[in-house]
Amino acid sequence: MSLSHQTSLVPESHVVIAGVGLIGGSIAAALRKRMPACRITGVGRSRTRLEQACAQGLIDDFSTTPCSALSSTSIVVICLPVEHIAESVIEFVKHLNSDCVITDGGSVKGAIYEDLRRKGGPSLQFVGAHPIAGSEQSGFENADPDLYEGRTCVITPEGARPDLVARVTQFWGSIGCRTVEMTASEHDQVLALTSHLPHVMASVTAACVQPQHLPLTGTGFRDTTRVAAGAADLWAGILLGNQRFVVEAMLRAEQVLQELRLAVESRDSVRIEAILHRAAVLRQMLD
Amino acid sequence: MSLSHQTSLVPESHVVIAGVGLIGGSIAAALRKRMPACRITGVGRSRTRLEQACAQGLIDDFSTTPCSALSSTSIVVICLPVEHIAESVIEFVKHLNSDCVITDGGSVKGAIYEDLRRKGGPSLQFVGAHPIAGSEQSGFENADPDLYEGRTCVITPEGARPDLVARVTQFWGSIGCRTVEMTASEHDQVLALTSHLPHVMASVTAACVQPQHLPLTGTGFRDTTRVAAGAADLWAGILLGNQRFVVEAMLRAEQVLQELRLAVESRDSVRIEAILHRAAVLRQMLD
Repeated sequence: MSLSHQTSLVPESHVVIAGVGLIGGSIAAALRKRMPACRITGVGRSRTRLEQACAQGLIDDFSTTPCSALSSTSIVVICLPVEHIAESVIEFVKHLNSDCVITDGGSVKGAIYEDLRRKGGPSLQFVGAHPIAGSEQSGFENADPDLYEGRTCVITPEGARPDLVARVTQFWGSIGCRTVEMTASEHDQVLALTSHLPHVMASVTAACVQPQHLPLTGTGFRDTTRVAAGAADLWAGILLGNQRFVVEAMLRAEQVLQELRLAVESRDSVRIEAILHRAAVLRQMLD
Repeated sequence: MSLSHQTSLVPESHVVIAGVGLIGGSIAAALRKRMPACRITGVGRSRTRLEQACAQGLIDDFSTTPCSALSSTSIVVICLPVEHIAESVIEFVKHLNSDCVITDGGSVKGAIYEDLRRKGGPSLQFVGAHPIAGSEQSGFENADPDLYEGRTCVITPEGARPDLVARVTQFWGSIGCRTVEMTASEHDQVLALTSHLPHVMASVTAACVQPQHLPLTGTGFRDTTRVAAGAADLWAGILLGNQRFVVEAMLRAEQVLQELRLAVESRDSVRIEAILHRAAVLRQMLD
């Protein structure tokens, strides 16, 4: 991975957000805070929800079809569940002129490019991205203008037009992200370990506990399982979208868990401490 | 488990804290804040450390031997690693008069009573306890007077003198805990799932990640693995002290993890969502 060089570009004047949920809503809120002159158009299926987002002042206008949402210089940010991103890219590309660009906020990247390849080749005007920020909450009502502040955003150029890669890089930077470039495959391999596996482990931990045990949980349980409260359907899509690397990561975790369990069974305190110590040293590097 | 009834007792005038680390230090800090008239004596092996705790105003005086620490009405709180608690109880009991009582803050309870049974039977003056509060930090320098505020503290009477059970219950209540009575075995079985397993899962998750991956971690990884930064030797003692129930909990987690991995391998989104949803519902009950 490499830090993207920033080029001097004009600020975006029109941002189209497809999918105004927590992620898309937080992008809108961040733009409102940092670039109040920017026009924001929401795109979605539910007119009622889009009207609510408008009434809340999060977006300026909305459309239920890609074609009528676009202006001549739009940047489109697709904030849909990962399994719907490729089809949305294809739909927008049909109506895009050469001064427009598409990016996304999906947590997996390889599957999106594979989908695009299967359906006619990725557009030179699509620059994939993944801002590493999120919440177990959902809906634009929980939008946070500072969600992206100081967060890493991975940019996956994968052969897109260099001027548009620079523009998308600037866009994510403008809402507070630190950007890095990686290939889609590099991204997916690392994120399987740093994001998808933690979610899996949090869910497994929570799934082992019964409601009547909850009064005897402390801050350890609370933090360890926080992300497990996230939407099950969204996460099923993420795990399947990164299937190969997620399975690899889970097999690795099963191996370490089994190794630690055997050490506890055989009262091998040296082995137990070695595993816990390796984890502690790694985790302490974050603080 | 049952909520303990509170009886009207005089506040403690002399508290002896054996092991002035994060847990013992936070008890001292809580007493300073809530019962400033109470005299606090620290007991430990390191004179230097005890002198520092004295200089910091956390304890009033200290001793390196149990016998010289006790007064006629002391309540002794043993805040040592779990594998040293039974021997410390035995040492204090030798010098205890009938108006004194011993409690502890250990995260496992069964192993302590087993140890006591092996070494001559548990004292009627020992009332085990486990305040469900902690931190991945260590040392009295990180003591927090509010660490126990609103936390559950499990009391394990196991045949101790009822007047002393009431006194210990009041003591933990006086530093902010909500107390519940359970048998040592009930406690260990539930805590294996609500505290020991989360620690194991956090450590396994962290152990799967390499230092070069850390820039691509977000708040999910940060929260899920926070407790893994804790002291490896302390936690090895806890896992071994609750060996039987910890192994049961780990086997359960291995089973769920494997079930989820097989569902991802076979792209069974219904099965994936069912497991994630069960976890999400459980976790949402906490919020």
